[in-house]
Amino acid sequence: MYIVTLTTGNVGTQDPKLSRTQLAEIRRQEELAALKDLGIPADHYINLGYDDGLLEFEDRKAVVENLVRWIRKLRPDVLFAWDPGKNYQRWHKSDHRAAAYLAADAARAAMWRLLFEGQITQEGLKEFMIPEYMFYDDFDYQDENVWVDISDFVEKRVNADSHYISQFGPGWKNYNPNPSEAEVQQMKAQALDFIRTRDGKRIEGFRYYKGLPDAIGK
Amino acid sequence: MYIVTLTTGNVGTQDPKLSRTQLAEIRRQEELAALKDLGIPADHYINLGYDDGLLEFEDRKAVVENLVRWIRKLRPDVLFAWDPGKNYQRWHKSDHRAAAYLAADAARAAMWRLLFEGQITQEGLKEFMIPEYMFYDDFDYQDENVWVDISDFVEKRVNADSHYISQFGPGWKNYNPNPSEAEVQQMKAQALDFIRTRDGKRIEGFRYYKGLPDAIGK
Amino acid sequence: MYIVTLTTGNVGTQDPKLSRTQLAEIRRQEELAALKDLGIPADHYINLGYDDGLLEFEDRKAVVENLVRWIRKLRPDVLFAWDPGKNYQRWHKSDHRAAAYLAADAARAAMWRLLFEGQITQEGLKEFMIPEYMFYDDFDYQDENVWVDISDFVEKRVNADSHYISQFGPGWKNYNPNPSEAEVQQMKAQALDFIRTRDGKRIEGFRYYKGLPDAIGK
Amino acid sequence: MYIVTLTTGNVGTQDPKLSRTQLAEIRRQEELAALKDLGIPADHYINLGYDDGLLEFEDRKAVVENLVRWIRKLRPDVLFAWDPGKNYQRWHKSDHRAAAYLAADAARAAMWRLLFEGQITQEGLKEFMIPEYMFYDDFDYQDENVWVDISDFVEKRVNADSHYISQFGPGWKNYNPNPSEAEVQQMKAQALDFIRTRDGKRIEGFRYYKGLPDAIGK
Amino acid sequence: MYIVTLTTGNVGTQDPKLSRTQLAEIRRQEELAALKDLGIPADHYINLGYDDGLLEFEDRKAVVENLVRWIRKLRPDVLFAWDPGKNYQRWHKSDHRAAAYLAADAARAAMWRLLFEGQITQEGLKEFMIPEYMFYDDFDYQDENVWVDISDFVEKRVNADSHYISQFGPGWKNYNPNPSEAEVQQMKAQALDFIRTRDGKRIEGFRYYKGLPDAIGK
Amino acid sequence: MYIVTLTTGNVGTQDPKLSRTQLAEIRRQEELAALKDLGIPADHYINLGYDDGLLEFEDRKAVVENLVRWIRKLRPDVLFAWDPGKNYQRWHKSDHRAAAYLAADAARAAMWRLLFEGQITQEGLKEFMIPEYMFYDDFDYQDENVWVDISDFVEKRVNADSHYISQFGPGWKNYNPNPSEAEVQQMKAQALDFIRTRDGKRIEGFRYYKGLPDAIGK
Repeated sequence: MYIVTLTTGNVGTQDPKLSRTQLAEIRRQEELAALKDLGIPADHYINLGYDDGLLEFEDRKAVVENLVRWIRKLRPDVLFAWDPGKNYQRWHKSDHRAAAYLAADAARAAMWRLLFEGQITQEGLKEFMIPEYMFYDDFDYQDENVWVDISDFVEKRVNADSHYISQFGPGWKNYNPNPSEAEVQQMKAQALDFIRTRDGKRIEGFRYYKGLPDAIGK
Repeated sequence: MYIVTLTTGNVGTQDPKLSRTQLAEIRRQEELAALKDLGIPADHYINLGYDDGLLEFEDRKAVVENLVRWIRKLRPDVLFAWDPGKNYQRWHKSDHRAAAYLAADAARAAMWRLLFEGQITQEGLKEFMIPEYMFYDDFDYQDENVWVDISDFVEKRVNADSHYISQFGPGWKNYNPNPSEAEVQQMKAQALDFIRTRDGKRIEGFRYYKGLPDAIGK
Repeated sequence: MYIVTLTTGNVGTQDPKLSRTQLAEIRRQEELAALKDLGIPADHYINLGYDDGLLEFEDRKAVVENLVRWIRKLRPDVLFAWDPGKNYQRWHKSDHRAAAYLAADAARAAMWRLLFEGQITQEGLKEFMIPEYMFYDDFDYQDENVWVDISDFVEKRVNADSHYISQFGPGWKNYNPNPSEAEVQQMKAQALDFIRTRDGKRIEGFRYYKGLPDAIGK
Repeated sequence: MYIVTLTTGNVGTQDPKLSRTQLAEIRRQEELAALKDLGIPADHYINLGYDDGLLEFEDRKAVVENLVRWIRKLRPDVLFAWDPGKNYQRWHKSDHRAAAYLAADAARAAMWRLLFEGQITQEGLKEFMIPEYMFYDDFDYQDENVWVDISDFVEKRVNADSHYISQFGPGWKNYNPNPSEAEVQQMKAQALDFIRTRDGKRIEGFRYYKGLPDAIGK
Repeated sequence: MYIVTLTTGNVGTQDPKLSRTQLAEIRRQEELAALKDLGIPADHYINLGYDDGLLEFEDRKAVVENLVRWIRKLRPDVLFAWDPGKNYQRWHKSDHRAAAYLAADAARAAMWRLLFEGQITQEGLKEFMIPEYMFYDDFDYQDENVWVDISDFVEKRVNADSHYISQFGPGWKNYNPNPSEAEVQQMKAQALDFIRTRDGKRIEGFRYYKGLPDAIGK
Repeated sequence: MYIVTLTTGNVGTQDPKLSRTQLAEIRRQEELAALKDLGIPADHYINLGYDDGLLEFEDRKAVVENLVRWIRKLRPDVLFAWDPGKNYQRWHKSDHRAAAYLAADAARAAMWRLLFEGQITQEGLKEFMIPEYMFYDDFDYQDENVWVDISDFVEKRVNADSHYISQFGPGWKNYNPNPSEAEVQQMKAQALDFIRTRDGKRIEGFRYYKGLPDAIGK
């Protein structure tokens, strides 16, 4: 399991004291703490370093090329990504929307030996076709076709979520690396609220797809 | 109430005699005449001056930056804009479609102190989060959730509409700044036809949204 | 009947022996053979020569300008194109998606005398409004409103399809310009399978539209 | 002899009455009249239709691709172009400067079979290496190495120059397609003044280069 | 006298404690303090807010359009700018180099009624041709043709220079808004050293140019 | 000693049989063979994989960012690069010219902690200022200020040069990986010819520079 993130999250704060640099460092530490809780080692976290809030203005070809490189290196069995073009993404014009399309674009391009060929002739990489996909959205879940029972992992996930202090916790307006116990409990409660229930079970829903990346949307 | 328009409308005519310059000047005069009828002063009309029909080819970052500046200056209580990603917008690949996304992008960016920061450190502006939104479309109205009874304003609106001679009136093919009384009446009749009715009342419909711009599409 | 294609198809192969150049040449010959079967002369096939898989990274204004030139030259009664923004296109982030939007953009721009005016003042072309449209998709056919009975042309079409050896036939993994009779039969069977049936007849479905290009999506 | 021009000249006027369209048409007629005087037929004049004053903002790859197409079609023995990087060009940041570099870029790219290959696989063109070059500048002539005695053509040239009424003549501030005889004489006198003299002869000077385009600057 | 600056200077520091925001604010205060010493009011300082060190990656057309707007607003008698294409600028690939070319480009574009016409039809501005130019460089001064005796202003200038603490003073590595008297003296000494002498007089040298902006480089 | 190359050299051949892929692979093998002769291990050769002949059309910011990453990783004592803006580079509009500027740009950007900061906050890199520079050109050598006596290395260099069969040898028109002994001798003779002599010694000349990258051109 590898996590590839596009931006450093260095913009999204309401705390007037934080700088871009500080925010990027805080977000990284929060991410690593959460991943550690989930048993994912720090070197499985890859952040491509783009500036928060400006991803859609970066050169698309260059971003796709970077993602293709990681797909060809990591050769994942399954890609988890925002569902491109979904109702929420359609309106949500921002880094999330851009990320959804860029991930789909990269999955498509990575499989062709004759695209971004420099990676193959110069870096010893080989083309790779991701065989399976789990797309998620956080809006109307209209296209979901697979639900995973996460009952056994709810506590783990809630704990992991409680590390994102600068983003979802009290640090949003006034960052403090050491929240009080009460604040931590509130973050956990909120995280729990966010988890959906289906047929009495805690679940995550996805649009599962298997096949040629070109037909991801079918 | 301020009107921020992106293009000058200097292309859309079927009159073979009009130049880009003339058309831009005519469209401006028509707009100001309509606004006057509605009680909106001329200096509340801001036109960013982009060329008609080519908006989607302009540098997106630069356009968003311009819109962010105006949002931070005017600090509106409500933003009225085309609904981005709506069915009609989805297909309508043109200035309207571009404008819908650009407005949503700018609303999102304007709230972050660390985005387009030059406006803040150099121009004395402050970040600003638009709190409420009224999105409109002119296709299937499928996402409308608010209808405003405009019965008392129908005449005002029809009068205002009758100023757009070069765009909707007889001036489309053969521009004449002084239409005949019959032509004016026809424009007004057409404008009236265009106004929708619901439960026996003349209305305008919107998708109303209140909250974080990031979730505009939810 | 003219065919305007954007890319040369010089990337999409799983045959490790083919180069970009060879693939482009093969694809062209396959296309011309298919068109010949349909009675369309070779000089009615126009390929704009863009690289396969990278169309969305080309300068959009330059591509639209090229398409506008061909619309103004050929002055078609009807445009056949992928339906932009359709569900399939929405997700299918690739050359097909780009082509759908670019075709709609070009149809819109071609009608204005004051857009891409160099073509008019320097090349003797005139603005042109395509009056009718037949949009197709290959996903859920949800917006189709016209079905054409193609029963009499099924054989012709199947024969034409059987020429695309490098794309749909055995040449996908191991290109051979001379497939065996059995392979040809299999390609034909597959092509036949792909043709839809409605009310017991072999059909092609379209979203038919007539009117101003600006309202293509209505 | 073919003339390939990049822009339509539709901006450069001080006459407040002229529109972009009118200016483009006037400039074209002036050019054709001048070429006729020189014995060059109208269909040897190719204008790529870019807007005046904005050439450096066009997508460079697309412009070079267009020029490469013309080089491969016309297959010239000699290219006449502004000398790129010359002192004057170095400072003269405008269409002239852009044109100088674009011409050199296109000359270089046109010779490679594997560049802009769509022109070769789809349009029946072949790569072409321009063998000889005559570069000109209008500043300090410091790099000139060839001078052509044009004594016998001075009258022809002066006559040709006298057609550029909107650009060099009285039409600059107040365009009139039919200048008076006195005005024509003044334009001719001015054109004659502009022609340089060397060793008592009327001349044109050039930097002549023969060889691989890659070393144009050596 | 108006000062138009392109970037906020928010990158160039060796002090590890400063953020982009802080640096931009410090630089602005230093600039205003210096201008005050010279008798230039704060509202004559216009900073376009671009990020330091990244100017050459901004959309050139958008930056030129912004500069053209200011030229048409301020209508200067003389433009002071880095000399574009000069030996130093030729090598100095950075914001300074970009600024030199952008200023020349904007000076050229501002004079044409038909360029960036939205400013004219929508904002009440008029085209404007800057009549005179004073170009400076800080390398070999090879093209200087005018020297101004600044003997009477040396003290004023040295005082003004002493405000740039974060850029030239002790603040470069460890910013302190209140330098010691010794530090201020050292900054002043350094500023004095930087002023050139010619024929026994303290001078500033320029390449003076008067005429059409198109021929700035002649 | 590390070699960072921007393009794969996959275009520059006159052999009609070679594909882009084959050429890229051949060029890589030739480079590695040459480096081996010089005692430089294969993993010190870094090729960024851009397409030959199209470097100037790539997104400049993305290329500079890649180069900055390598500078911050390798932290070189000295940068060897084409001299940007030199007379030859000024005219030589091609990958070489682009490479010269991009190297200088990257050297400049790499030293700032606040530029391309994602590399620092996410990848564990630190800003780095290259302290010394050796710039080379192959035109008029006018700015050279340092000459290195390479007498002892002439044979090594000639041997290394003899590996570039596809570029300088008989493979230019008809590639053969195993040239005859006579052909190898001719390549060596040619390579020897290319080495300059000064004061009776075989030399390489450079423009040596030490100091802030911002003043590289001084």
